[in-house]
Amino acid sequence: MLKDLVLHNRSYRRFDQSTRIAPETLRELCDLARLSSSGRNAQPLKYMIVSSQEECAKVYPTLGWAGYLKEWNGPEEGERPAAYIVILGDTAIASNYGIDAGLSIQSMTLGAVEKGLGGCIIQTVRREELAKILDISSQFEILYVVALGKPVEEVVVETLKPDGDIKYWRDEQHVHHVPKRELKDLIIAEK
Amino acid sequence: MLKDLVLHNRSYRRFDQSTRIAPETLRELCDLARLSSSGRNAQPLKYMIVSSQEECAKVYPTLGWAGYLKEWNGPEEGERPAAYIVILGDTAIASNYGIDAGLSIQSMTLGAVEKGLGGCIIQTVRREELAKILDISSQFEILYVVALGKPVEEVVVETLKPDGDIKYWRDEQHVHHVPKRELKDLIIAEK
Repeated sequence: MLKDLVLHNRSYRRFDQSTRIAPETLRELCDLARLSSSGRNAQPLKYMIVSSQEECAKVYPTLGWAGYLKEWNGPEEGERPAAYIVILGDTAIASNYGIDAGLSIQSMTLGAVEKGLGGCIIQTVRREELAKILDISSQFEILYVVALGKPVEEVVVETLKPDGDIKYWRDEQHVHHVPKRELKDLIIAEK
Repeated sequence: MLKDLVLHNRSYRRFDQSTRIAPETLRELCDLARLSSSGRNAQPLKYMIVSSQEECAKVYPTLGWAGYLKEWNGPEEGERPAAYIVILGDTAIASNYGIDAGLSIQSMTLGAVEKGLGGCIIQTVRREELAKILDISSQFEILYVVALGKPVEEVVVETLKPDGDIKYWRDEQHVHHVPKRELKDLIIAEK
């Protein structure tokens, strides 16, 4: 059932770093993105796959982690992502990527969950630095980085509390809690 | 397999209009969207469900269809969508919706495919007119309309021809062809 995949497709930020991901697996995730819808079928997204330990170690410091967890600077060595897919906009094809990145990334991360992996979509990226590290030419705009690995943290979806606070939080057992609005509060009308 | 769902999750534009969709089914699709990731977990998207024949008939004329098919003005009566989900941005929560709409719509349309339905993400919308018709307050920004129904057209994904033309096209048997770039042309490097 797709719902199981969607439910388990959480933002995971701690991984078993020793479980590496084969480039072929990452290519399969890019293929799911490739086969997803694209506005006007322009297909302006490109991908860079990073899976070697050496390159992953260079990418990691350019990323920002979990803005709401002020006392946590990101996963420690041993719990860092085992791979990254850098989502790029090809400026030779388009200047506006509409919702293509969202459509493609959702396919990718659902695919990762199906493979027993998990991901985190990272928007806080030191883009200039990352472009330099990965030798990404100025033709490509870095849109997002999807961090991937075998999750070692539990993420629980729960109902928003009456105070309406949407900030995710981590309890003493390091379980990550994600408050979600209820369906009745999202559907404004049915006609 | 998720890949089967992704492969069959094409932009369908002709439906069996007589196969109606229960509101409960549309709520389930919204629930898949609800459970999808949201930037900073802000969850700024809201949904309006339209499934009655009367309301669907009012929504239809506000939508633009298949920009590349110049001689086709959209599905004829009998082949029009059986339901719509209007994707809204709640301006009381956010002013920028990031990739949330893409993530949520991909979950929704994959869910539709799993249920034997199909959808089309429509960006060409006469928004002011639609807001008036559906009585959507100015608190909500109309982002996209997802048209849904039981598809009656065949959509074929094929490889981009050497001329690089990405425009979808329809053959004499009304089969809809979608040229997709090859994976090797999307992955700019592996490290």
